Amino acid sequence: MKLVSFIGSGNVAWHLAPALDNTDFAVREVYSRNPAHAAALVDKLYEADVKTSLDFSDSPSNIFIIAVPDDAIQSIVQEIILPDEAILVHTSGSQPLSALGYAAIPGIGVFYPLQTFSKSKKVDFADVPIFVESENPGTEKVLLAMAKAISKNVHQVTSQERKAMHIAAVFASNFTNHMLLIAQQIMKENNLNFDWLKPLIAEMINKSISIGPEQAQTGPARRGDFEILDRHMEFLQNDEQRAEIYKVISQHIIDRYH
Amino acid sequence: MKLVSFIGSGNVAWHLAPALDNTDFAVREVYSRNPAHAAALVDKLYEADVKTSLDFSDSPSNIFIIAVPDDAIQSIVQEIILPDEAILVHTSGSQPLSALGYAAIPGIGVFYPLQTFSKSKKVDFADVPIFVESENPGTEKVLLAMAKAISKNVHQVTSQERKAMHIAAVFASNFTNHMLLIAQQIMKENNLNFDWLKPLIAEMINKSISIGPEQAQTGPARRGDFEILDRHMEFLQNDEQRAEIYKVISQHIIDRYH
Ligand SMILES: NC(=O)c1ccc[n+]([C@@H]2O[C@H](COP(=O)([O-])OP(=O)(O)OC[C@H]3O[C@@H](n4cnc5c(N)ncnc54)[C@H](OP(=O)(O)O)[C@@H]3O)[C@@H](O)[C@H]2O)c1
Ligand SMILES: NC(=O)c1ccc[n+]([C@@H]2O[C@H](COP(=O)([O-])OP(=O)(O)OC[C@H]3O[C@@H](n4cnc5c(N)ncnc54)[C@H](OP(=O)(O)O)[C@@H]3O)[C@@H](O)[C@H]2O)c1
Repeated sequence: MKLVSFIGSGNVAWHLAPALDNTDFAVREVYSRNPAHAAALVDKLYEADVKTSLDFSDSPSNIFIIAVPDDAIQSIVQEIILPDEAILVHTSGSQPLSALGYAAIPGIGVFYPLQTFSKSKKVDFADVPIFVESENPGTEKVLLAMAKAISKNVHQVTSQERKAMHIAAVFASNFTNHMLLIAQQIMKENNLNFDWLKPLIAEMINKSISIGPEQAQTGPARRGDFEILDRHMEFLQNDEQRAEIYKVISQHIIDRYH
Repeated sequence: MKLVSFIGSGNVAWHLAPALDNTDFAVREVYSRNPAHAAALVDKLYEADVKTSLDFSDSPSNIFIIAVPDDAIQSIVQEIILPDEAILVHTSGSQPLSALGYAAIPGIGVFYPLQTFSKSKKVDFADVPIFVESENPGTEKVLLAMAKAISKNVHQVTSQERKAMHIAAVFASNFTNHMLLIAQQIMKENNLNFDWLKPLIAEMINKSISIGPEQAQTGPARRGDFEILDRHMEFLQNDEQRAEIYKVISQHIIDRYH
């Protein structure tokens, strides 16, 4: 049995802490700058306490999970005081392992769950891919066991691979979502209902996931239909930036398939 | 009871003809340049025949549905010979009603199903939004009845509105799919498995559809995290076009939220 402390009680901690708490990695402490935030998460756990300081020298825990925004990781690492033989990890897709270097302990690692979390939306961790990284074999072993305790989709990657994966995830989720936002805006500006596009969006994503995006590609750029592309560019001309997005993506599709 | 003839036996006809055939709009004829293609569709219908010419002067049908690629609609309209009081429609999202003007009959219209069709994938028409357009009240009435016979999601739009909707659909489906292709390529180039992104993609789209893309937006551009944006741009620098796409979309997200 390993014991775990969380630094941060945001989106990731909100789902990860309760998932671990049901396994051999019980959560004992939650630190947040705002104790009320930590208390809200502690309420969802069996035996955890609210921590109000980053001095963990007397902590019973073995594993310390930093789940704060990327740009706050550094200041936590500089302030935190850990017990002997602690393992310290962050949960970021974009920060290298070396972001924890300042801790000057052998047991540093990364524990990156590739999913989008928000407090209000339930997540089944069993299906969340978790990516583990450490240069210390003992730490790696513990982190792999912790990941496998909650997910059946666990992999080891390097910082460089995780970076590539994070960039791929930006295209696959942040940018797809932004395409939906532009679609919604165009519908709204023309007094059309965004709901009408939803069956198409759902079917398109299903198709893309099942047969692969290369096979699933359709549309005027895929067909090389320059007449329609011109008409669309004309339609979009009152919004320069949007027209630019239409143009560069269409050009990329044309170059890819023609 | 109205009778229907199809010109074309491709993706749209393949699903639309059988759906209509179960209603008061029975399909009687299928024309295709290649009779074997028409025969394959006729096999799925109750009482339809293969047509090998575009001379429909003796046709029993009232409604003629042109479901051929956009750039072939014109040549069909120029060649087709219709019986008296026929209704002629196309099924395109991007072609105006006037694409049928050459037919010089009062009963022209558009019957646009907003969904992505391919022969190999089953579609439940009940959920497919269908957009009907006609300038002739009698024709419009018949087309609305035909649409409502197969779908509970039927709307009237103008050619201009349909054009806007089609452009929105390009962003929402063709471009989202292309973002997935780029993600897949980045994963592959780094020996990572595209499958690992699939739970994220599914969750992101669910979120976007349920809470709306504006609320669902996350990622470095949404947070205004310029350090990460710079690192990503650096990572992407070996592929100029891909970097350009990353840049214009990120910039658009930044301008939208900051
Ligand atoms: N959200 C996701 O979908 C997701 C997915 C995978 C990985 N990640 C990674 O997981 C980590 C946490 O993300 P998250 O979404 O859970 O973050 P979050 O919800 O925005 O915030 C997490 C916690 O950090 C605390 N915090 C904020 N600023 C701080 C600061 N300057 N110093 C100390 N504490 C601060 C916040 O609470 P208090 O104000 O109470 O201290 C909050 O409890 C990040 O590295 C992120 O990249 C996120
Ligand atoms: N696919 C979709 O997801 C979708 C969705 C909504 C609307 N639409 C619209 O529906 C219409 C049909 O699309 P589709 O995907 O069904 O098309 P498709 O599958 O590519 O082709 C339809 C048919 O047209 C025939 N054809 C091809 N070129 C022709 C030509 N030059 N002259 C005469 N016939 C020709 C083909 O068969 P033969 O070779 O046997 O003649 C085929 O039967 C288009 O206007 C499209 O914009 C499509």
